[in-house]
Amino acid sequence: MMSKIVTFGEVIMRLSPPGNRTMKQSHEMEFFFGGTELNVAASLATMGCEVQHISCVSDDFVGESAVSFIQSFGIDTTFINKNEHPLGLYFLEVGSSVRASRIAYNRLNGSFANIQPEKIAWKEALEECQYFHWTGISPGISESAYEALKEGLKTAQNMGIEVTADPAYRSNLWKYGEKGHEILKELVSYSTIFIGGVNEINEILETQFSSDKEGFIEACKELKQQVPSVQRIFDKVRIGVTASTQQTQGRAWVDETYFETDLLEINPVVDRIGTGDAFAAGLIYGLKNFDDEKALSFANAACAIKHTIPGDINYSSVEDILEVMNGNSGGRIKR
Amino acid sequence: MMSKIVTFGEVIMRLSPPGNRTMKQSHEMEFFFGGTELNVAASLATMGCEVQHISCVSDDFVGESAVSFIQSFGIDTTFINKNEHPLGLYFLEVGSSVRASRIAYNRLNGSFANIQPEKIAWKEALEECQYFHWTGISPGISESAYEALKEGLKTAQNMGIEVTADPAYRSNLWKYGEKGHEILKELVSYSTIFIGGVNEINEILETQFSSDKEGFIEACKELKQQVPSVQRIFDKVRIGVTASTQQTQGRAWVDETYFETDLLEINPVVDRIGTGDAFAAGLIYGLKNFDDEKALSFANAACAIKHTIPGDINYSSVEDILEVMNGNSGGRIKR
Amino acid sequence: MMSKIVTFGEVIMRLSPPGNRTMKQSHEMEFFFGGTELNVAASLATMGCEVQHISCVSDDFVGESAVSFIQSFGIDTTFINKNEHPLGLYFLEVGSSVRASRIAYNRLNGSFANIQPEKIAWKEALEECQYFHWTGISPGISESAYEALKEGLKTAQNMGIEVTADPAYRSNLWKYGEKGHEILKELVSYSTIFIGGVNEINEILETQFSSDKEGFIEACKELKQQVPSVQRIFDKVRIGVTASTQQTQGRAWVDETYFETDLLEINPVVDRIGTGDAFAAGLIYGLKNFDDEKALSFANAACAIKHTIPGDINYSSVEDILEVMNGNSGGRIKR
Amino acid sequence: MMSKIVTFGEVIMRLSPPGNRTMKQSHEMEFFFGGTELNVAASLATMGCEVQHISCVSDDFVGESAVSFIQSFGIDTTFINKNEHPLGLYFLEVGSSVRASRIAYNRLNGSFANIQPEKIAWKEALEECQYFHWTGISPGISESAYEALKEGLKTAQNMGIEVTADPAYRSNLWKYGEKGHEILKELVSYSTIFIGGVNEINEILETQFSSDKEGFIEACKELKQQVPSVQRIFDKVRIGVTASTQQTQGRAWVDETYFETDLLEINPVVDRIGTGDAFAAGLIYGLKNFDDEKALSFANAACAIKHTIPGDINYSSVEDILEVMNGNSGGRIKR
Amino acid sequence: MMSKIVTFGEVIMRLSPPGNRTMKQSHEMEFFFGGTELNVAASLATMGCEVQHISCVSDDFVGESAVSFIQSFGIDTTFINKNEHPLGLYFLEVGSSVRASRIAYNRLNGSFANIQPEKIAWKEALEECQYFHWTGISPGISESAYEALKEGLKTAQNMGIEVTADPAYRSNLWKYGEKGHEILKELVSYSTIFIGGVNEINEILETQFSSDKEGFIEACKELKQQVPSVQRIFDKVRIGVTASTQQTQGRAWVDETYFETDLLEINPVVDRIGTGDAFAAGLIYGLKNFDDEKALSFANAACAIKHTIPGDINYSSVEDILEVMNGNSGGRIKR
Amino acid sequence: MMSKIVTFGEVIMRLSPPGNRTMKQSHEMEFFFGGTELNVAASLATMGCEVQHISCVSDDFVGESAVSFIQSFGIDTTFINKNEHPLGLYFLEVGSSVRASRIAYNRLNGSFANIQPEKIAWKEALEECQYFHWTGISPGISESAYEALKEGLKTAQNMGIEVTADPAYRSNLWKYGEKGHEILKELVSYSTIFIGGVNEINEILETQFSSDKEGFIEACKELKQQVPSVQRIFDKVRIGVTASTQQTQGRAWVDETYFETDLLEINPVVDRIGTGDAFAAGLIYGLKNFDDEKALSFANAACAIKHTIPGDINYSSVEDILEVMNGNSGGRIKR
Repeated sequence: MMSKIVTFGEVIMRLSPPGNRTMKQSHEMEFFFGGTELNVAASLATMGCEVQHISCVSDDFVGESAVSFIQSFGIDTTFINKNEHPLGLYFLEVGSSVRASRIAYNRLNGSFANIQPEKIAWKEALEECQYFHWTGISPGISESAYEALKEGLKTAQNMGIEVTADPAYRSNLWKYGEKGHEILKELVSYSTIFIGGVNEINEILETQFSSDKEGFIEACKELKQQVPSVQRIFDKVRIGVTASTQQTQGRAWVDETYFETDLLEINPVVDRIGTGDAFAAGLIYGLKNFDDEKALSFANAACAIKHTIPGDINYSSVEDILEVMNGNSGGRIKR
Repeated sequence: MMSKIVTFGEVIMRLSPPGNRTMKQSHEMEFFFGGTELNVAASLATMGCEVQHISCVSDDFVGESAVSFIQSFGIDTTFINKNEHPLGLYFLEVGSSVRASRIAYNRLNGSFANIQPEKIAWKEALEECQYFHWTGISPGISESAYEALKEGLKTAQNMGIEVTADPAYRSNLWKYGEKGHEILKELVSYSTIFIGGVNEINEILETQFSSDKEGFIEACKELKQQVPSVQRIFDKVRIGVTASTQQTQGRAWVDETYFETDLLEINPVVDRIGTGDAFAAGLIYGLKNFDDEKALSFANAACAIKHTIPGDINYSSVEDILEVMNGNSGGRIKR
Repeated sequence: MMSKIVTFGEVIMRLSPPGNRTMKQSHEMEFFFGGTELNVAASLATMGCEVQHISCVSDDFVGESAVSFIQSFGIDTTFINKNEHPLGLYFLEVGSSVRASRIAYNRLNGSFANIQPEKIAWKEALEECQYFHWTGISPGISESAYEALKEGLKTAQNMGIEVTADPAYRSNLWKYGEKGHEILKELVSYSTIFIGGVNEINEILETQFSSDKEGFIEACKELKQQVPSVQRIFDKVRIGVTASTQQTQGRAWVDETYFETDLLEINPVVDRIGTGDAFAAGLIYGLKNFDDEKALSFANAACAIKHTIPGDINYSSVEDILEVMNGNSGGRIKR
Repeated sequence: MMSKIVTFGEVIMRLSPPGNRTMKQSHEMEFFFGGTELNVAASLATMGCEVQHISCVSDDFVGESAVSFIQSFGIDTTFINKNEHPLGLYFLEVGSSVRASRIAYNRLNGSFANIQPEKIAWKEALEECQYFHWTGISPGISESAYEALKEGLKTAQNMGIEVTADPAYRSNLWKYGEKGHEILKELVSYSTIFIGGVNEINEILETQFSSDKEGFIEACKELKQQVPSVQRIFDKVRIGVTASTQQTQGRAWVDETYFETDLLEINPVVDRIGTGDAFAAGLIYGLKNFDDEKALSFANAACAIKHTIPGDINYSSVEDILEVMNGNSGGRIKR
Repeated sequence: MMSKIVTFGEVIMRLSPPGNRTMKQSHEMEFFFGGTELNVAASLATMGCEVQHISCVSDDFVGESAVSFIQSFGIDTTFINKNEHPLGLYFLEVGSSVRASRIAYNRLNGSFANIQPEKIAWKEALEECQYFHWTGISPGISESAYEALKEGLKTAQNMGIEVTADPAYRSNLWKYGEKGHEILKELVSYSTIFIGGVNEINEILETQFSSDKEGFIEACKELKQQVPSVQRIFDKVRIGVTASTQQTQGRAWVDETYFETDLLEINPVVDRIGTGDAFAAGLIYGLKNFDDEKALSFANAACAIKHTIPGDINYSSVEDILEVMNGNSGGRIKR
Repeated sequence: MMSKIVTFGEVIMRLSPPGNRTMKQSHEMEFFFGGTELNVAASLATMGCEVQHISCVSDDFVGESAVSFIQSFGIDTTFINKNEHPLGLYFLEVGSSVRASRIAYNRLNGSFANIQPEKIAWKEALEECQYFHWTGISPGISESAYEALKEGLKTAQNMGIEVTADPAYRSNLWKYGEKGHEILKELVSYSTIFIGGVNEINEILETQFSSDKEGFIEACKELKQQVPSVQRIFDKVRIGVTASTQQTQGRAWVDETYFETDLLEINPVVDRIGTGDAFAAGLIYGLKNFDDEKALSFANAACAIKHTIPGDINYSSVEDILEVMNGNSGGRIKR
């Protein structure tokens, strides 16, 4: 049975002063392992799915710790390579209320950026794979990461695998060339499910649709026209009141039909990082187990509950997420 | 002068990962000692009352630490026994916003569950006692805890002591037999003050009153009819918006009269555990020092301020609580 | 070019149990160095200004740590003396929601209280100085602190330096004599810019103006009448909903004209201490770089963002503050 | 190829105040997962072996965390059951120098003690297994743990698997009956490799051999006589100078021949727990890869280096252990 | 029965950066309550004695925390006063090996220094008292502390109480007058047991005996000649190899006879503070329960084991100390 | 007066799990800023010298924190540039006893590796400079770091500045070309004082002198022959017993004369990193203030005491070091 989910992307370490301290006020930092695609993998594994993550980490005790962390979820790490470059990492100062969070990256010369595409046995890795998930971060990191991913996508397409794309464009990446938008469009053309909305479509197609419902529908139509491989489009709208309060809502365009979820409010936000990945993981789980509308609601609830969990990864079970989806909003103690 | 307050119940250790972390994300845990009746005792001692706690702890350094902790409040520990069973404990993952908190217990084979009723010299322990407080947790833990408590209640009744009952029914207890509701009703029949409302009455009497004001009044009437020892009924209504926001209100049925307090809002909630016990302690203090209406307001304010204090115990002074009761809601620094 | 800012005041250590714990629940404390005038100095230095702080610290490793901390901002510490008295300090239990924060001081016999006025070479220290900043805390600590400050103010007036006064009256100071109000009025008479509002004016002039806009205008007129050296008056109004939520607004009386800023809301409050000092620093920076109205808005935004930063000091850059002033209220991650 | 190693035993949580603090001096505890057989499994997995651990954990988030921890080593957890009893745990106050460490257990009514023997599919679990490892802790915990283990040992014997026995007798176990010595002797009779020395033999055979070399040889002869399944005997001698200094040495009786290793000294001891398990794991690794004498030296070095690692488990690689074995005793930094 | 032990002295807070960090390297500090006489009291209470401590603390939440701490030992705090001065405290940077520890005090204007002698009801406090213990710290802090102590000593002498004196002279005290040596001699004249040796005698009598055995005997003879109230003299000799290694030995002069204990070595030293107080407590316990020689050995073992415990106080039980005294030096785990 | 000391080199962040934990066992890390030349600068500034450090850091909040840290010592940071590359860093797992420490670097593409030589105004920077200090780390990091340093050395030589060289060869550097030994020899030819011994000379000259005293003398003679600019040679011999115990000794060859210091032992070692830099700083301070022999002893004592201080930097005062030099080895408390 083809039920495995495969993800590909950087394993990155996050380092953060405790609480809302600035780095100048600290002598220690918390650290978490994550990475946008690994976050999806780990959330899916926590929900009970069979998952494999493909990456390249540093050949030192930092890389070993990262692999150990990934194994703790029961994720298959067979296809994680190692090289002599350091593991990518970033520093995070956590904002609050009117103060934004700040990130400083150290990833562009790391082990993943220096991945060797020819070292990944994609055919073998994608055996029994039902869903392959990628994001726009990987091709933005380096040319070889782009090449590796493209090879994977081609293989997936040939093997008839459902491909979920989260093609966010990040302007602080793409240092190796100026062709980000084109590359993302190219890579989306290997994908069947688009996780994103007006912002992402505008970036890829270099269009200027508005971000309201109508704009979303027009953008979806344009995307399906220009990139016919895309069959379904699911998006999450984040309404960020402050660094400490958020609202999330899911919307979708499937079979020429629009639908959306209820709005969920999170106050206070414990950790905003990885909430989009929680949405993607929730969506993939939902698509495997529910109909498309319920999948979207489940994804939105997964996104909401992630805001309450420290670190990059959604540690929630399916049952936890269903409770949020069904409106049991937390004011209890589960004994 | 009979002014001592005596409480009886388990001393339990609470272990919790820091902040909102899950256990999987942690290598250390905070710990607190507590226990629903001890929480009442400690809050009353902090308010300056003379208090004695009766229990049974483990005969090891964990039990010694618990006793040391109880002594730190100036509580009399003379009647705390020790045995060879481990101290009861529970693990708590603290939720936030839409995420509920989770508890995992390890208490049913602990030192309190194995208390030997015959080892408690109730008569001696209750000398000079004005108020004796018990809750529905103790008899749910084990048969011997139930026996010990019943003996204490009989003695208290014979000595004419005011007995406050907080007879919450917890479905995850009562593993030693199926008769929880009946036992609670039996034990309430030794009590003069009932701390609870529609939920508790419905559980004990196996009735189905509604939880609004009218239902509360009807339930109180029925309770006084069926259990004539009960003279006064005081309840706290918790309106839990999320794991991070709460509202509390007190209501009472005394002398065939209904009265209620203002609603107090707590945002954010620092710690929800022990807020009911803070209410009970505030009520007992109030009944000793104020009239019944002011006692209820004081209890409600005590409940509210406990939401802002980590751990199981309300560390507030009488003055702190009066300030909350009088609407000075915290936006100052007391220098 | 006269561009230096000079501040004078106590360097004080703050000790605080972690989170919202009470001291009884703790075995460790966080510590921060601060002090109302130092907070202004450090915020200005963080914004890129040339700053000098004048004080007296303990001649031990505690005092050395304090000086090292001040140097970390690039502040000139040449005129910080040392003596054999211990560094002033205070303990802080951090409240939340309905619970107020509590402070216990240990400063009245410390190194600053025992400063020797004759040891400060004011003329030399104030060379190249554009702004000299003082607060009502210093003269309240001890007679010698008052004498030292008065000498500094006289020198500043003679040298034609712009003097900013934040003359808050704290009733828990002034133990060395009963003449607080008079002394503050005397010291304001050396100042050109008054940072304060109705409360401060009422205290100094022993008047009873109301705290609304009209009262503020009347009070300002009266102050300028009685203390003609004061040319401009800037105030921040704090609307404290609870210990966890605050609103701030700036208002001013300049050239017989009233103006005010928008209201900014902070929820949750991370740390309330030093928010007034952040306002003062923002104001001085603003007056050096913007017109008076923009200066007031900048000061209000500086005050707002400080509520989100642990410790006494505003670590924000000019750019950070401008973003808050311009309404970018934090719901983003700056990568 | 039969290369898998299977271990069976309790997964236990260790809780410890930080540093050398007593529990009374602490508000937090570090925690580690371990368990004598799991420690062996985890060390072997870290050395690159294929390992499976069989156990029973609690069906709550504590048990989930334990499984996640075990997976982080890449250990196969397929045969770990869950039940409604709490995970076993113990508290540890860490001694130093002249002060002994103290342990308080909470395990005798835990999930492993309540394991259901019939739920383990031993035949399936032991497929491809080359070594099966057990210790004297498991049968001491409860009758059902004993039954489960005996079933496993019988299966292993039938399948011709090499069985390593570490049959330490702990007097604080064996509460369910008085027959500890006999049971251990019975279980050793299914084993081929005996990890233990004079103490263990004296306990099992109820003999009184002396602990010197001659006594060791006589004891070994007697053991092989009485329990003929045992083919090889390997022991570690611990010379405990203080809680902070230790010396270890290995000795063995194989093919009627005695051999021993050099003495290794560890000063200071970071953590003594699990050093015997590190020896056992080193031995099994050694027997799989080296001759018996080198295996013993490797085991002794593994035991030594474990004393420098916090927690129950030896996180050392084969290369790390070989360095200690070859006398490179740590005074370098490996860049 | 006269069995109570009463101690009198400052309650002081110790603040220390974690590990061996300097203050400049830290943002947090551990804190402990202690004080040389309180350390004796707490150790005796831990050994099961009935103890009362007399002092004066600050009337704020710091003082309340101190009292709560003292109560946690079951010590009677009835005669602890409060005043408006801050609690005394000191900062400690912990040395290691060749680096000495450093202390900075803040106590000379604290609550104990400002104790009001007339507020202590000595007669009432010393009822049922068998031993009264004082040290040379108290009279060095302030004149009023001296007066209070003298009043207590007079009362004790009149009531025939055994008085133990630990009259160490600290040169960083005695700021209120130059008569330290004389005052100590005066106060010793109310005492029956002298805890100290050549150093202390030389300071009090302004003699120059050598520190070897002969010098010790001569010094004892001279002391008994000049201060006839002293009947027995017990001393501990500390041989400090480095900040991390220590040796201790007890010696005594009783009934014109010299005796000494074995030398005990502690490596590594966890905490040196309070080891002299552990000796004094061990001695008092020993004198109450053993003969003089065994009492000295017990005191020396108590001193040794305290070196392994963080903070100021010896948390060891009588059993723990006896084990050290009997040479069971720690290399075990007590399960 | 030419009295300033100038250092040039990378500012690097060190990240380390707490205590002796491995990274796999941790969720947080301590961090310290350092860097071999900065360590020298900071130690000299702590001893009261006027110091300037030249470097290049990241243009983000990590770089800002580093500069703030450097300023805290009063070091002049005027000539520290910023660029868009991340700050160099390394991870450290701290060994103990027989376990070696392990380091994983992330520095070869960092901000210092990408320093732009033309951006350093060497002439201006070296004004008033008496000593310029460099090490073999900088030219090993990148070609541009090498170029920048060479330019600085040429300028220093032209200005007649005393140049101290610590030309350690690290094999894990020099990735940009294979010419390490030659480059170091070239750079030493601009230097007047050589800090190093047989190892360093053998590496630079590609000779094979033995490491005993005779070998040292021969090596020194050969070095002075081949590189005549070198006038004095000072070395520290480290005798590493284990990761927890060390001995250090200084030796020198000056004016055709050999001299050496006493051996100092450190047990336990708190932190080995930066001990060589402490030696270099002690030496430079000594050469400025003492004769050469005393300078060497002072340097050796500085090296010894650094082993007791966490982090990369020697926080000791001149007085602290003199005490170690004079044999007061730490077993006291400095009050």
